[in-house]
This record gives sequence, structure tokens and C-alpha cells, in this order.
Amino acid sequence: MALSSHSSLPAILSMMALVLVHLCSGAPDPRQREMLMQQEASRKTGGTVALNPAELQLNAYLHKLKVQEMASVPFPPSMHFFKARPYIQQSAIFKLLRKMPKGAALHLHSLSLVSAEWLVRNVTYRPHCYICFTWGGSVRFLFSSRQPFPTYNCWRWHLLTSLRASMVDPAQFDNSLIQNLTLFTEDPGAAYPSEDEVWARFEEAFHALAGLVTYAPVFRDYLYQGLEEFYADNVMYVEMRSGLSRMYELDGSIHDRIWSVKAYQDVSAKFSAEHPDFLGIRIIVSSHRIQSVSTTKSAVKGAIELQKNFPELIAGFDLVGREDDGRPLWYFREALTLPAQLGVYLPYYFHAGETDRQGTDVDANMLDALLFNTSRIGHGYALPHHPLVKELARKNGVAVEVCPISNQVLKLLSDMRNHPAAVLMTEGHPVVISSDDPTLFGTTGLSYDFYEAFVGIGGLSANLGTLKELAMNSIKYSSLSTVRKKTLYDMWQKKWDKFISDHYQ
Amino acid sequence: MALSSHSSLPAILSMMALVLVHLCSGAPDPRQREMLMQQEASRKTGGTVALNPAELQLNAYLHKLKVQEMASVPFPPSMHFFKARPYIQQSAIFKLLRKMPKGAALHLHSLSLVSAEWLVRNVTYRPHCYICFTWGGSVRFLFSSRQPFPTYNCWRWHLLTSLRASMVDPAQFDNSLIQNLTLFTEDPGAAYPSEDEVWARFEEAFHALAGLVTYAPVFRDYLYQGLEEFYADNVMYVEMRSGLSRMYELDGSIHDRIWSVKAYQDVSAKFSAEHPDFLGIRIIVSSHRIQSVSTTKSAVKGAIELQKNFPELIAGFDLVGREDDGRPLWYFREALTLPAQLGVYLPYYFHAGETDRQGTDVDANMLDALLFNTSRIGHGYALPHHPLVKELARKNGVAVEVCPISNQVLKLLSDMRNHPAAVLMTEGHPVVISSDDPTLFGTTGLSYDFYEAFVGIGGLSANLGTLKELAMNSIKYSSLSTVRKKTLYDMWQKKWDKFISDHYQ
Ligand SMILES: [Zn+2]
Ligand SMILES: [Zn+2]
Repeated sequence: MALSSHSSLPAILSMMALVLVHLCSGAPDPRQREMLMQQEASRKTGGTVALNPAELQLNAYLHKLKVQEMASVPFPPSMHFFKARPYIQQSAIFKLLRKMPKGAALHLHSLSLVSAEWLVRNVTYRPHCYICFTWGGSVRFLFSSRQPFPTYNCWRWHLLTSLRASMVDPAQFDNSLIQNLTLFTEDPGAAYPSEDEVWARFEEAFHALAGLVTYAPVFRDYLYQGLEEFYADNVMYVEMRSGLSRMYELDGSIHDRIWSVKAYQDVSAKFSAEHPDFLGIRIIVSSHRIQSVSTTKSAVKGAIELQKNFPELIAGFDLVGREDDGRPLWYFREALTLPAQLGVYLPYYFHAGETDRQGTDVDANMLDALLFNTSRIGHGYALPHHPLVKELARKNGVAVEVCPISNQVLKLLSDMRNHPAAVLMTEGHPVVISSDDPTLFGTTGLSYDFYEAFVGIGGLSANLGTLKELAMNSIKYSSLSTVRKKTLYDMWQKKWDKFISDHYQ
Repeated sequence: MALSSHSSLPAILSMMALVLVHLCSGAPDPRQREMLMQQEASRKTGGTVALNPAELQLNAYLHKLKVQEMASVPFPPSMHFFKARPYIQQSAIFKLLRKMPKGAALHLHSLSLVSAEWLVRNVTYRPHCYICFTWGGSVRFLFSSRQPFPTYNCWRWHLLTSLRASMVDPAQFDNSLIQNLTLFTEDPGAAYPSEDEVWARFEEAFHALAGLVTYAPVFRDYLYQGLEEFYADNVMYVEMRSGLSRMYELDGSIHDRIWSVKAYQDVSAKFSAEHPDFLGIRIIVSSHRIQSVSTTKSAVKGAIELQKNFPELIAGFDLVGREDDGRPLWYFREALTLPAQLGVYLPYYFHAGETDRQGTDVDANMLDALLFNTSRIGHGYALPHHPLVKELARKNGVAVEVCPISNQVLKLLSDMRNHPAAVLMTEGHPVVISSDDPTLFGTTGLSYDFYEAFVGIGGLSANLGTLKELAMNSIKYSSLSTVRKKTLYDMWQKKWDKFISDHYQ
């Protein structure tokens, strides 16, 4: 397994460069220039990945495609994804990325895996589905064997089959439901003038999704469908954050958390049995950062317990929710040091640095995530503004989970070419690409985010080696044991070789 | 002169940090955390600048203001400058920055120094001023003692006094002239959908400006007015790129370049005589990158000659114009190695890296600028995508001239918090702040760009030490001799002390 065999080469090359260059007066030496450019290229993500002759051919083809695409107007990575999506779908590079074995998806949320289309056309057509329209212009769903009680925000529940039957244009009604389950909109600039509005809609949409997805009979189908979509996108293993919400039944009864855990286990096992080239899933138990320290303490204790009882499934713990609205990690230190005090090891996978507010309390989350010994950093959007933290992360092998489309939709940036992961990738910092919330952002699997990373963030200098290293990184930095990593890597290598030979023999 | 006394401290601290930190399991030590945060802070621009008690008081006040401003909606640095300007003008931080002695302006273009308002209300009201309206919707100006001949693009010239007299609303007409001389517009998103459109308007506006400014009698007043505006903004020394256009007279006769050089010299001397706390100006002779290699060779030879004859005034040489449209620096290597071949030293101040097209030929301009031994890098927007080049630049003391508003108006980015200079500033990379083209961008002096750098790019962690180092950098990285740097530094220190004591005794 050659995942980390060449890790120190770029460092050595860069030291050589500094020693060799004498920028005195006079004419530059073209060979020295060439050498410096090669050294720079070798530092990048994928810069030291060896490509065989077939891969080199595909690489040349990809380069040609990219030169064309970078000259195209409009250039999709410079646009909002909601406007860029139709262009991306027509891109020859995107079509290749769809087929490329991408390894693992390491940053996902369990309530937002599938296309909203499937939720509406399949789930909302099931019997006993009620809907209500909230004051805030969102919707809530509930499966129930009788008319649900009114609640705050939901004082009138409609049986969906009756409501839909009464519509003049049920297709248009379904489209409006789809709109409610995603952030997708024709004019995102007008719909979401600032980060506050888009985050408000984001949280609303999660509430809407929860009613559909946490209905016990739906949940299994939903999860299976989610894995199906990732599998179709050539993803072979998935780690997802989950609050392990308790599932409900038609009569209003509620299952315990163990039921949810077992549902994840069962569906994963079933899916892998039916798709031998899919390894399975693992869960990162998550708690919302809006909670109190004592609630978070209980959540940590719960995660420890679950991990003890389901070591194959439960990977670790995370805090989720908008960082800029919540308490910084350091605020939760009493909860987060519990495992150490109890003498147990609970791996952390903290969201950290999903902010543009440099120098604020939450901007310290990346440092604190490292001090709490995090295994990866979710987003790390602000990491290039913290050179010391960046060095520590690299030294400790803490990869950054980069979710480009999520960052754009949630308004951290507009043009992907300015994504800070470009800094990380040109330095060869360990990164993986993920899609965060496909349902909400209107993506499928990982390919859209790979497209943005490869064409927008990576620019003309990202090549097939970059893609290969990103795929290998997703295995290397997964939560899997060494043995299972090896299994996944071998599975991936086989598919990768086939992918290459499908394009060039 | 304490400009460079502490240059290696951050490096030492950062090595200490890597040695000291053992991110093993368990609870983080709050003292270790505090130490890491201090080390991180010490790396930033200004991170090792010592502040005296009065400065610390002002710093605390500034911090308070910034916390307020960062919570304000809308947050000016997140908006396009054309929309943010009225908010910035009301900002208490901006008002302080206006008064702050900022040292030198090192990246300016000689045709775009003053407010468009002054050009219209003063210059276009002078006698013999003709105007024509081009096919492309722009204007041209010409002072002439008789009706000018039609030219391509300008087949009908109107005497401005007659035309204005015939207008129903001369005030509105003047406003439309102002619009033609700047890129300023209410709705920049609609007016300039892409980089191509805004660059086209940018080049047009330069042509419009040239007719007004290169009229010999206007030029002296124009330059004086430009220095007046920088002086009023508490800038004490100015370096400007200039093509040294030949000035014309009413009868159509044209002066030679030496006339222009002497005009710069005279006006600078006159201004300094009348403002003893203003040091003067220096010129970086510039040639357009659209020219051929042989024309560029002549330009380099011309610059060598001028520098020999006017060593006080002529600082060096640069290539200007949009990098993405022009040839890369390497294409001009035969011209740019001429001085070395002739055994003379011609300092270079290359625009380089004003691009978001990673991996293209022009993206290598920063490396090549260094190989051609550049003294500074203009813009260096793409520098954080080139870690090796960044290290070389730092090692060789090559500062980056950061012009935030220019980059935003020319559509490299929208939200200033994503400006790549944030990466450079958190690493303590040598940077100076400048304003590129005040006329075109609707700024005055340096304060608007300082505001964006301090509030937007620097975030909450930029403080008075940052501002002090930015001001000192502008002296340290100027083209001045060591002796004149010392003079300027002492002048600046005196004004700085007064600035501090004006706010706190
Ligand atoms: Zn997330
Ligand atoms: Zn410039």
C-alpha cells in the first residue's frame, strides 16, 4: 500500500530549491527555471504520484479538455453552483469524474444524502404522509395513522394524498416541495442576500427533511437510496455525521437510539452484500453546538458507550451547526476532555474553521480541534489564515475535509478560484473532497464537488495525479482500521485500473 | 532605524512551537494554548511591533470599534466597493485611517491619481477643451487651438464650452463625464458581468483620461493636485508607474520625453518646498505588455538612459496592462536581460500574479519576476498558490504591493475577507498597501484600501501594530536609498507620534 511512501520528498526538494537559487543580477538560467517549476509542481496534491503510460495518456486528454473548459464563457467554477450546474452536467471533464473511482466520502450529514427529487416522488407519495406549512414559509412532514395534533408553528396538518389530489397542477406542487427540501433556487443572490438568510433556510430545510426521513419504514429505504446514489457516483465507502435521531412509527411511538444504530448497520450490511465493491458506512455521532455543556457531556458519554458497543459502525464524535452562531469548541472543553479523563479514546472529527470571521472566538476552533486531538478537520475554510495551526495539522496528519459547493452556497465565497483549499492543495496539505449535504445543495455523490476542486480550485495545474491522490487520501484519512483501509485500497485500485483501461488500453 | 531588527523572531517562535507541542491524547493545557495563540499572533504583519502605552490605548479603542463594525449589517468589506463606499465614509475606523500617517504609496499609475470630480469640474472647464463620443460609448478629450481633425473612432469633435452651454442640465452632463472617467457605477454586477468587460472599460477610461492629463499646461496642475490629495490623506512619498507619455500643446506640437521627466521633477520639487513634510515622488518607467519584444527592448534601453540621467527621479522599470491578455514576462526575456548584458543595474518593479488562472503561462510571472531580480511584486494576487515562489520572495525581501479595491473592481474577488493577502499577512510576508488607480476606482489616497486591508483582509486580529508595520513597510520597501529612507522614516515617526498624541496624551 503506497499511500504514504513519498511524503517527505517535496520537503526535501523545496529545501534544495532554497539552497540552489542565487537570485543575483543578470540573466536567469532556463534550466534553473525549469527545475524550480518542477519543484513547485511536486509540492502540490498529487505532485509526486507516479502515473503509468495509460494514465499519462488519460492525463494528456484531461489537460486538453481543461484548457478548453478554462477558455469557455461562462466558466462554471466562477459562477454560483445553482447557475453552473447545467453547464457542469454538459462538461466532458464532469462526465469523466462521474466514472472515476473516488474512494470514500468522509464529510456528509445523514439527513441530506439523497436527491430531493427522490424524497418527493417516492417518499411523499407513501400513505399516511401529512404536511403542514409553517409561518416562516417552510414545510413540515409527519407520517401518522391519524390526524396529527397541531403544534407551535404547525397548527394545520393536511393529508398529502388529499391535498395533492385537490391541486390543479400536482406536478408544479411537487416541484415546490422539492424547492422546500433544498436550497436550490434560480437566483441565489436575491434569495440569500447574506450568510444569515442562507443559514436560516439551511436549518429550516433540515427540519423539513427530518419529518420524512426519521419515519422508521422510510429511513431504511432512504439510507439504501443514499448509498445507491453514492455507489452510482463511484464512491465505495461513506462516513456520515449523524445525531442518531430516534425514529418514529405511524402510531407516534418512538424507537430508542439502538434501533437507529442497528438500522444503519443492517442497511449497510445489506447494501454491501448486494454490491460487493462497496465497503460500507461508519457513523460519526454528532451533537449540535447550540446545546449546553452538560448536554454535550451526555452526548460525549453516549458516543463513548455506542463506540464500545458498536466499534465497527461508530467512528467517533463531532459538534455540528453553524460555527459563527454557536459557542467555540473551547467553551465545551469540560465535555470534550471527558474521554481522556475516563481513560478512553473517542476519535474526534470536528467541524472547524467554517468561517470568514478572522480573529473571532470561533476562528480558534481549528487550533482547539487539534488540541483536543481531532482526527480530521471539517471544512477548515479558514486554515490558510493560521499558518501555525496549518503546520501542526500537517505534522499530525490531520486532513481537511474540503466541501467546495457547501462553502459557496453558504456564502463564504463566490468564485471557486478563490477557495482557500487552493492554498492547501498547492502546498500538498492533506485534503479530501466531500459534498456535505447533497440534498440541500442539489448535488449527487461527490462528482460535482470534485469538478469544482479539479477545475476551479486546482486550475490548469491540477492533473490526473491530483485526482488520484485525492481518491487515495479519502482512504488514507478515513476512520478505518489499517486492515480495512488495505481492503478498501485494494478494491479501489482494481476499479481505478479498470477506469483507466476503459479509457485507454 | 528599527525597520528590520526583529525579522527572524517569528521564525524562531514557530520552530519552538513545533518542538514544544506534543498533541498526545487528553486534555489540552490552557497555558500551552495561550502560548500557541501568541506565537500565531507574533507571525502576523505587525505581530512583533512593540506598542507604547499611548499606542496600546489607541489600539484598544480601535479593537472596540472593529468589534462593532464586524457586527454591522451590511459589512462593507463583504460588498463591492462601489456599494460599500458610503458606509466606509461613515466608519469611525476609516476616519482614523484618513488621519494616520501611512508612509508611502508605492503602486500607482500616473494617469489615475486624482478624483474624477476635479478633472471634470476643473480641467474640462478650461478653454479650448474638445470632446468626442466614441462608437464604443466612451469619450475622448483634446485641447486644441482650432477644430481638431476627425480620427478613427472620433469623427466629430465638440467644443466643450459650447456643448455644455447647449445642455438643458449641465450638472447632469458633468456627472456623466465623471462616469466616463471612472469605473464607478451603482450596479457594478450588471455593468461588468465578467473580467473581460471590466478590463475593456478600464482601458477605455485610460484613453479618455490621457487626452485631459497629457495636455502640457494641465499636466503640471494635475500632478500637483494628485500630490495634494495624497498629502491630505497623510501619504508622504509616492512612487508611480508612468509610460512618460509625451505632452502636447494647443497648437498640436508635442514635447519630448525629457520635458515630461522635468515636469515631474519640477512639480515634485515645488510640492515638497511648499509641504516640507512631503518627501517627493519617484517614477517607475513602464511599457505596455502588448508591445513586441523589440519595442520592449527599446523601452528598457530608454529606461536605462533615463535612470542614468535622472537617478533621483527614475526608480526602475515595469510592464503594465492586463496580464491575462498579454504575453508572460518570460516572453520578454531578451528585453529584460538587456541591463545585465550591458552590465548596468535597472531595478524592476513587475506587475505579476494579477490573475486567477492558476497554472497558465501568466501564472508563472511571479517566479519569472523573481528570476529577473524584481525589487517588488505588483499585486501578487496569486502568490499564495505558489508556496516555493512565496518563500523565494520572502527570502529575497521582495514585498508584495497589495491593492485590494483594484482586485475587487477588476473582479478577481467579491468579498475582501477572501483576499489572498490575508494569507500573506497572517504569515508576516512583506506587504505594502496601495491604491493602483484612484481616479478609476473612486478612491482618494490610500485610506480606502487601508480600510479594506485592516477591516476586511486583516479581520479582528489586525491591530494598530499591523497598521504601523504596513506604514513602515512602505518606507522599508520603497526604491529610496538608505539615506533617504532614513529621512522619510524620521519624518514619518514624527507625524506618527503626533497622530498618537492627538488621540491620547
Ligand atoms: Zn458539515
Ligand atoms: Zn497597477
